[in-house]
Amino acid sequence: MPKFMLCAAAMLAVAVSAHAAEGMWTLDNLPKKQMQTQYGFAPDQAWTAHVQRAAVRLAGGCSGSFVSKDGLVMTNHHCVNDCVQQLSSAAKDFIKDGFYAKELKDEKMCPEIELNRLDAIIDTTARVKQATAGLSGEAFSKAQKAEKSKIEAECVAGDKDKTRCDVVELYHGGLYHLYKYHRFQDVRLVFAPELTMAFFGGDPDNFNFPRYDLDIGLLRAYEDGKPAVVADFFPFSKSGAEAGEMTMVVGHPGATQRGLTLTQLETLRDLALPQRLFFGSEYRGLLTRFREESAEHDRIAQHDLFGTENSLKARKGMLEALQDPEVFAYKRKQEQSLRTFVAANAKLKADAGAWDEITRAETVLRNNYWPYRLIEVGAGFNCKYFEYARTLVRGAVEKQKPNAERLREFTESALPQQEQELFSTAPVYPDFEQVKLAWSLTKLRELLGADDPFVQKLFAKESPDAMAARMVKTTQLGDAALRKLLWQGGADALAKSDDPFIQLATAVDPDARAVRKLIEDAVEAPENKAAEKLAAATFAKEGTSVYPDATFTLRLSYGEVKGWEEKGKPVAPFTDIAGAFTRNTGYDPFKLPDSWLAAKDKLNGAQRLDFVTTNDIIGGNSGSPMINRNAEIVGLVFDGNIDSLGGAFWFDERVNRTVAVHSGALLEALDKVYGARRIVDELRPQ
Amino acid sequence: MPKFMLCAAAMLAVAVSAHAAEGMWTLDNLPKKQMQTQYGFAPDQAWTAHVQRAAVRLAGGCSGSFVSKDGLVMTNHHCVNDCVQQLSSAAKDFIKDGFYAKELKDEKMCPEIELNRLDAIIDTTARVKQATAGLSGEAFSKAQKAEKSKIEAECVAGDKDKTRCDVVELYHGGLYHLYKYHRFQDVRLVFAPELTMAFFGGDPDNFNFPRYDLDIGLLRAYEDGKPAVVADFFPFSKSGAEAGEMTMVVGHPGATQRGLTLTQLETLRDLALPQRLFFGSEYRGLLTRFREESAEHDRIAQHDLFGTENSLKARKGMLEALQDPEVFAYKRKQEQSLRTFVAANAKLKADAGAWDEITRAETVLRNNYWPYRLIEVGAGFNCKYFEYARTLVRGAVEKQKPNAERLREFTESALPQQEQELFSTAPVYPDFEQVKLAWSLTKLRELLGADDPFVQKLFAKESPDAMAARMVKTTQLGDAALRKLLWQGGADALAKSDDPFIQLATAVDPDARAVRKLIEDAVEAPENKAAEKLAAATFAKEGTSVYPDATFTLRLSYGEVKGWEEKGKPVAPFTDIAGAFTRNTGYDPFKLPDSWLAAKDKLNGAQRLDFVTTNDIIGGNSGSPMINRNAEIVGLVFDGNIDSLGGAFWFDERVNRTVAVHSGALLEALDKVYGARRIVDELRPQ
Repeated sequence: MPKFMLCAAAMLAVAVSAHAAEGMWTLDNLPKKQMQTQYGFAPDQAWTAHVQRAAVRLAGGCSGSFVSKDGLVMTNHHCVNDCVQQLSSAAKDFIKDGFYAKELKDEKMCPEIELNRLDAIIDTTARVKQATAGLSGEAFSKAQKAEKSKIEAECVAGDKDKTRCDVVELYHGGLYHLYKYHRFQDVRLVFAPELTMAFFGGDPDNFNFPRYDLDIGLLRAYEDGKPAVVADFFPFSKSGAEAGEMTMVVGHPGATQRGLTLTQLETLRDLALPQRLFFGSEYRGLLTRFREESAEHDRIAQHDLFGTENSLKARKGMLEALQDPEVFAYKRKQEQSLRTFVAANAKLKADAGAWDEITRAETVLRNNYWPYRLIEVGAGFNCKYFEYARTLVRGAVEKQKPNAERLREFTESALPQQEQELFSTAPVYPDFEQVKLAWSLTKLRELLGADDPFVQKLFAKESPDAMAARMVKTTQLGDAALRKLLWQGGADALAKSDDPFIQLATAVDPDARAVRKLIEDAVEAPENKAAEKLAAATFAKEGTSVYPDATFTLRLSYGEVKGWEEKGKPVAPFTDIAGAFTRNTGYDPFKLPDSWLAAKDKLNGAQRLDFVTTNDIIGGNSGSPMINRNAEIVGLVFDGNIDSLGGAFWFDERVNRTVAVHSGALLEALDKVYGARRIVDELRPQ
Repeated sequence: MPKFMLCAAAMLAVAVSAHAAEGMWTLDNLPKKQMQTQYGFAPDQAWTAHVQRAAVRLAGGCSGSFVSKDGLVMTNHHCVNDCVQQLSSAAKDFIKDGFYAKELKDEKMCPEIELNRLDAIIDTTARVKQATAGLSGEAFSKAQKAEKSKIEAECVAGDKDKTRCDVVELYHGGLYHLYKYHRFQDVRLVFAPELTMAFFGGDPDNFNFPRYDLDIGLLRAYEDGKPAVVADFFPFSKSGAEAGEMTMVVGHPGATQRGLTLTQLETLRDLALPQRLFFGSEYRGLLTRFREESAEHDRIAQHDLFGTENSLKARKGMLEALQDPEVFAYKRKQEQSLRTFVAANAKLKADAGAWDEITRAETVLRNNYWPYRLIEVGAGFNCKYFEYARTLVRGAVEKQKPNAERLREFTESALPQQEQELFSTAPVYPDFEQVKLAWSLTKLRELLGADDPFVQKLFAKESPDAMAARMVKTTQLGDAALRKLLWQGGADALAKSDDPFIQLATAVDPDARAVRKLIEDAVEAPENKAAEKLAAATFAKEGTSVYPDATFTLRLSYGEVKGWEEKGKPVAPFTDIAGAFTRNTGYDPFKLPDSWLAAKDKLNGAQRLDFVTTNDIIGGNSGSPMINRNAEIVGLVFDGNIDSLGGAFWFDERVNRTVAVHSGALLEALDKVYGARRIVDELRPQ
């Protein structure tokens, strides 16, 4: 599950009435008229098709783009950080020192990165709706899953290694579109700067601007052992972005909640966000101290701490938005307007109960929030070995079932990604896994209560610490070859295994499946069904003049390079390279790497480094190309400003800004700091 | 500041209309008629005077009572935990093993415990109000502080070593009473069980019931090197508490917020409580990991982690109460009722602006919440050395001023407690102090922002980690003798010191004083003034038939032994000793100590261990005696159930329960587990 999926329940409802730059538009429904009116530019069919195929998705939760005909892919450092860490060891730390493959043969395979290029969008709304007509609850849920799996299997048609097909719910059940992707699983690391430069300013500067980061990571897609040859890619613009220039972001925003009903927003404000923040804050403290214990601990927990801090900051921003009376007033007005429309419409007024149906479902969600997150989502078993064990245990059962009846993550279309993760050769660190497991088991006991029947069954008389120590000591699941054998051996092989994690994953599976089923049948199914009614009402009111909530599928946002006003003071849209040197203190996270200090005299201090635009993005857009109307790279999206965090719920053009690295700075640094001539030549505009 | 002080702003307003057992009554205004009607018992003058002088306060933030004529004091283990830890070392861990002074000469002095016995209550309302008549803002604040300090100094009259005098604001400015205490600073540890028994069930069971804790700590007050001889003490009852029996709790509840206005409650719900919870959760994670690193780290951070977890659980309960729509609806109704009364009353209606004045003050508080907490309250400098340095730096300045003009914590009446803490011989652990300081400085930078002028000035180009390491390495303030010299040497000695903490405390003092002044003048002063108006209105409406919000002064609550219903199931009011053995898993925190396992056959398993009553208490009541109508000990208060946490805002008699150790279990354990004959003989009812 991508890390920016915030809410366990299905996302609901439909966004309403766009501001100027508001909107994450699907590529088959671009607001051409608006774009023409505002910027004198409207993409034609050829432009759109080209842009669609030059963009890529990192299946793990980021965006990227092809930037050369030889399959070179540009994304963020923080999107490839996991790979950089996996390729490192105590002897060679690429997080600290950066990575550059001087020659093609030096490019190193990332064990867990999958790229998806969107090749086609097909409308399957009628099929999905017909399959669920007249059904509700469990029957609705089952029929819908089965039909989706069937459509996907037909689309994959036996070519699952290279083809990935996802039925995507848009407008929360207003439309069901089949997204057909070309899948790349041989993806290699080409370049990553030092973390200190990619993430200069660290957590203090994260989601802030002015900013001085070079948050880039370069990958290359391979096919049949050779660089993939791609017809569509984005060349670099000659000069990069200028103030006031129209910019477009083509990427994969993960999830927005702009269409949620008031009761769903209340669940987020009063339960989900604060609870996740308490949980994550404690984990942050634990990791902070763990990293201080040794250079090796510092290295192996770096990515986990980054992810934790990043999520904390994002969720705090979201919570603050929901605590803002202006936001709730806006949402209340929006909901009231739709209620009035529904009540006055003869065809729709039978659907006025949809809001109450959602409220009832939310009560089920609230009452089962922690059991679901801890036992099924896995927050109570935060440990690589457990993740492997669950995939093995569930896979053995699910693979025996007909495709249409499987859990969604084990359908034929989904299996290659599961296998890539399961067979990954990335190192696993037992002492770190033990710390994470002991802590998460302790939280599980705390949050469910020491007298909870599941807790009593899980621990018997053992303590979380003792259990974690015992299990990590004896498990063999750190061995990728063994995992492959167990996967191939299926239920028989598992039954013979005395691995404690296989036993644990087997023991907790009935409870985990039960709470998942409850959430699917009593929360997601009724909310999806109610959402279809609200979607129909919104369609009747607004048509497709609006965009659907984000779903980690390809979207285009248009806007322009523009600063904003903060506390009455203007924030200029650009920073420059000289500014990074001024901000350098010599101490993490404000420490410029030696490579930059050495190159200082060669660098053009006036070269723009980072900049902001009015584009409408959200988590998942990390690594998106920022392009001009010629479909040339002018920047690389890597963040939003602090005000963009409320963007989960509404777009406030006054202050919501996208943050990007300037294309000129990318070329300047690759050339003068890193001496990456091979890559500069591949990228350099002619 | 006692640890349960939750809100930086002054507490405000007045509680309204008591439920049956609701109320924390001052001893000069007991609801005798109600008590007589409900329980057929009304205390007379002699009973009240006796009870008042048998109760004691631990100045650091707990309650207790005399339980023998020779100054033996009973309180909770968690109230003396700090002392037990301070008396321990790597070689001898009394937290783990418990402590028992076999003979009088083995009793060990607690370096930081001060006891206060309330000897007199004097009404000084007229003097205080006269001093501030016609004033507002800074002038109001200054005049009120000066008058209070003057009254206190007159009361102490040169005997500050044995006399402590505090002017206490009751009904938030409805009354100002002078509380005159006898002060004991030579306080010695007599008995403490193993932490595993005192806090059996640990954090998971904290604030829960059924419960199996022996949360007792015994101290002895000394005067002139000998046990203090006291005329008033509570003897143990022969049989202890029975179901349905009337019980009274005499103790020092710290702070309730039952009279806050809606906007003040909103600040707590939307800002103060969640922000403190995020902060505390992260600190919890840090300490959790720190303790795992070695046996010594485990020992030295134990008390800090306990305090952190205890506060977190308490604040989560408070937040949940404020998120409960029923609580806000109740509060809204209560406020509306007073507003209506004020509007309809010719004399009062000029005061109807009081609510808006409070709302304006709350805006100032919200905008300065973190600067105040981090810089002035000290959350950004979480380190013993800094605390010492600040006391030294401020003391040198304040002691030069006339008493009435000093900061309140440096008045003549307050100095003995400051000196006790400053001269404490408790060990300081540099590696732990460095971890705490580095972390809290990092939080300071995060919460104020890397570009904040104070942050820029504080760190220049240094990092929080580097700064903490440098300072802890060179400081000499761990030496109590040096601190005494610097205190006596005053400003001259400090000016010559190159101790980095003296320099830091000096450097940040102007900013710290400035934000304190802002909070005092623009939040506390207007809120106190507005509160006086609301208090007058409530007096006009209700008289003293109500009780004032808790202020860490002596109160009596009456109620009875009674279970409750949770999720439709009855919770019985008693647990017994056999139950503790059933719950034992052998692993912390459900591990019974060896002493109990060894004594199992001797113990009466049917002896009641813990029990619940309907008494109305809050943090600060820890260690309170629970007595019957004969003023005999029937129990020892140590906790509330989870529902009692909403008690900060309202008393819900359906579910709010006090949790106590049964007097019979105390005697049984002291005798048969700990062989503490000397003490049993001193306590045993004749």
